[in-house]
Amino acid sequence: MTLRTDRDYALELDRADELAHFRSEFVIDDADLIYLDGNSLGRLPQRSVERMREVVEHEWGSRLIRGWNEGWFTLPQRVGVKIAQLIGAQPDEVIAADSTSVNFFKLIVAALRARPTRSKIVTDDLNFPSDVYLLQGAIDLLGQRHRLHILHSEDGLTIPTEQVCDAIDGDTALVTLTYTAFKSGYVYDMAAITEAAHRAGALMLWDLSHSIGALPLELNKCNVDLAVGCTYKYLNGGPGAPAFLFVRRDLQEELPNPIWGWFGQQGQFDFQLQYQPARGITRWQAGTPNILSLSAVEPALDLMLEAGIDRLRAKSIAQTEYLIGLYDELLQPLGVTLNSPRDHRQRGSHVSIGHAEALRIDRALIEDLKVIPDFRYPDNIRLGIAPIYTSFTDIHEGISRIRRAIADRLYEKYPSERPDVT
Amino acid sequence: MTLRTDRDYALELDRADELAHFRSEFVIDDADLIYLDGNSLGRLPQRSVERMREVVEHEWGSRLIRGWNEGWFTLPQRVGVKIAQLIGAQPDEVIAADSTSVNFFKLIVAALRARPTRSKIVTDDLNFPSDVYLLQGAIDLLGQRHRLHILHSEDGLTIPTEQVCDAIDGDTALVTLTYTAFKSGYVYDMAAITEAAHRAGALMLWDLSHSIGALPLELNKCNVDLAVGCTYKYLNGGPGAPAFLFVRRDLQEELPNPIWGWFGQQGQFDFQLQYQPARGITRWQAGTPNILSLSAVEPALDLMLEAGIDRLRAKSIAQTEYLIGLYDELLQPLGVTLNSPRDHRQRGSHVSIGHAEALRIDRALIEDLKVIPDFRYPDNIRLGIAPIYTSFTDIHEGISRIRRAIADRLYEKYPSERPDVT
Repeated sequence: MTLRTDRDYALELDRADELAHFRSEFVIDDADLIYLDGNSLGRLPQRSVERMREVVEHEWGSRLIRGWNEGWFTLPQRVGVKIAQLIGAQPDEVIAADSTSVNFFKLIVAALRARPTRSKIVTDDLNFPSDVYLLQGAIDLLGQRHRLHILHSEDGLTIPTEQVCDAIDGDTALVTLTYTAFKSGYVYDMAAITEAAHRAGALMLWDLSHSIGALPLELNKCNVDLAVGCTYKYLNGGPGAPAFLFVRRDLQEELPNPIWGWFGQQGQFDFQLQYQPARGITRWQAGTPNILSLSAVEPALDLMLEAGIDRLRAKSIAQTEYLIGLYDELLQPLGVTLNSPRDHRQRGSHVSIGHAEALRIDRALIEDLKVIPDFRYPDNIRLGIAPIYTSFTDIHEGISRIRRAIADRLYEKYPSERPDVT
Repeated sequence: MTLRTDRDYALELDRADELAHFRSEFVIDDADLIYLDGNSLGRLPQRSVERMREVVEHEWGSRLIRGWNEGWFTLPQRVGVKIAQLIGAQPDEVIAADSTSVNFFKLIVAALRARPTRSKIVTDDLNFPSDVYLLQGAIDLLGQRHRLHILHSEDGLTIPTEQVCDAIDGDTALVTLTYTAFKSGYVYDMAAITEAAHRAGALMLWDLSHSIGALPLELNKCNVDLAVGCTYKYLNGGPGAPAFLFVRRDLQEELPNPIWGWFGQQGQFDFQLQYQPARGITRWQAGTPNILSLSAVEPALDLMLEAGIDRLRAKSIAQTEYLIGLYDELLQPLGVTLNSPRDHRQRGSHVSIGHAEALRIDRALIEDLKVIPDFRYPDNIRLGIAPIYTSFTDIHEGISRIRRAIADRLYEKYPSERPDVT
């Protein structure tokens, strides 16, 4: 059966979508703009607008310092409890704090120090570069005792589970991967790789930045040790919103957070001069939490929980399948490649396509055709599906315009220099 | 000459105050509330209300990912340039990033690694405890090769400059102090102590959290190496607002930032897998900057720059002198102690007073008398003067109500348990 490529079919799919009403929960002031970059920066929830006015104008403006005792102090834990529900973790295993990079730093340093006789760190070249830099920095910091084993992806899109598992040995201290690869959207076998790490006595750390809110995660079921993630992509927490970290309960007090700040101190207002870490996940905080930014995250999380991660995943699969179907009919004939796995069990919620002129096509889409995808060096265009607000019509219209940009060579007026977009 | 303790005199002083009109730049919706805690959380500027609506509703809501290229990417540097003007630094020596604790961690780890043959760290027990915890954590992280020399204040309020200088020797890697002590408001001799550190070959790191916006700082003139500070106190940046760090230009590329995140990477969107630090102060960033929170900081800084730090300091001195004069007349006779230096050259912009029942008095002030000071364990009440919005009438009314709370024993209905207020 050939896929129907007409717009009416997209409209039919939208009418049948049980999550369609969530779209009205978001600020969408330009209906003609096709936003396919929710995997980079999620849209603004209506209720976050209200929440930000409340926290700025009432809580800060009127309640002033009293705001701390009226909800701010417990906000990192409260947000953590909600995130835990999305990743299959216990409520006391997650806390919102700092940036993903700083949290990743805390956890890799802690993990390497917890395996002092081992020297190998396993990761791969699909990983988000910041994680690799942070690993290089931790090796430098800890006295060059470790070596970073970066597995190479043959096709640039995927890494077979066996390739990862085979690299883990008795000298491995830490295995760390980005669960959904940031370029291709490739998704690993979390259970198998975590189990292989544990069999070898290594710790397993997953970066969930491109996963949380896009697909169900089962950290406890997979017995994951450590995880980090960001809240500004599928969670719609706002630009540069605070990140989170997960530490399995039995490891929280065994592994030491290397950054001994006062928000991780037991009885921080005793102002004793000897560090005594707080109980549980709270010790993984460092400095004063960022209340304004964190306040936008909470209502955005509520939306995800209301929609339900299983329903969101079902819609995401339907939408990425639909997108790939349109690609087959409309873009592949123009020489565009598919840079994401075809099997949805190995795919997150974005689909990447490739073209030698990807950079210029991306620019033409943004500047002339009102489509916002995401360019990734050197020749990759990411199309992000945020099932909580992306419609089938968005996808249909987006692919149609991409086809036009390529078929009509609308990109040719642009130079090949690179814009800086996250 | 005896100080006039009548309210009319306070009103006269307000009428003569050339900065009085800045008060209307802040949200003050309850004229009867006497807020003396701007040294803990500054008030909300009116223009931050507008700026937050703009960044949330227009930049995030409508511009979406395009916001990064339309101002967000350079916001940490832009805020840094403005902070630099307040602390006597070059525009390219300061960047807004992370929390004060995380920034302090970066700088102490970098400093200790830059002096590998030295083992001593000099600080004192007036320092903010978070800084001491972070030092203890850095010692633990770096293999217990360092010892922390914590100078003891004899009077609990001050530390003579000679006492600090005498502790610095050829084995000292780092000297670090909070420039304005968080309890007593004591201010050090920055030039003399920095010079002593340098004479011994040590690095000098100042924590400016309780200083910036309260008094002029001359980091370049004093040849300071490193500094951190927060923006949510006298700068009025909002609860938990992002912090800043200063690294003297010639040290920026000599000292390594231990947290190698992608926002400190040269050409971060090349996505190369080998860390290559960005030029200059930018390499001291780590993860994605917190755009919403940081956006509130910028207009707040503009206000400080418009008022001018020298005029703010002059008013602050006049106001703390006035406050101490009222204390002498009205509180000292009731057995209240003065826990801050009398000499304004040794005093920041808050004045601490002591009483055995300080905890309960603080509670009665907040709950019954609409005065908000700040309690600091065990018997300390901090009275913060934020000269950009605090009026002489605020001070007069505040001291009058404190006198009433004590004289009429209004605190006696409260138990001695401690509330958690920053």
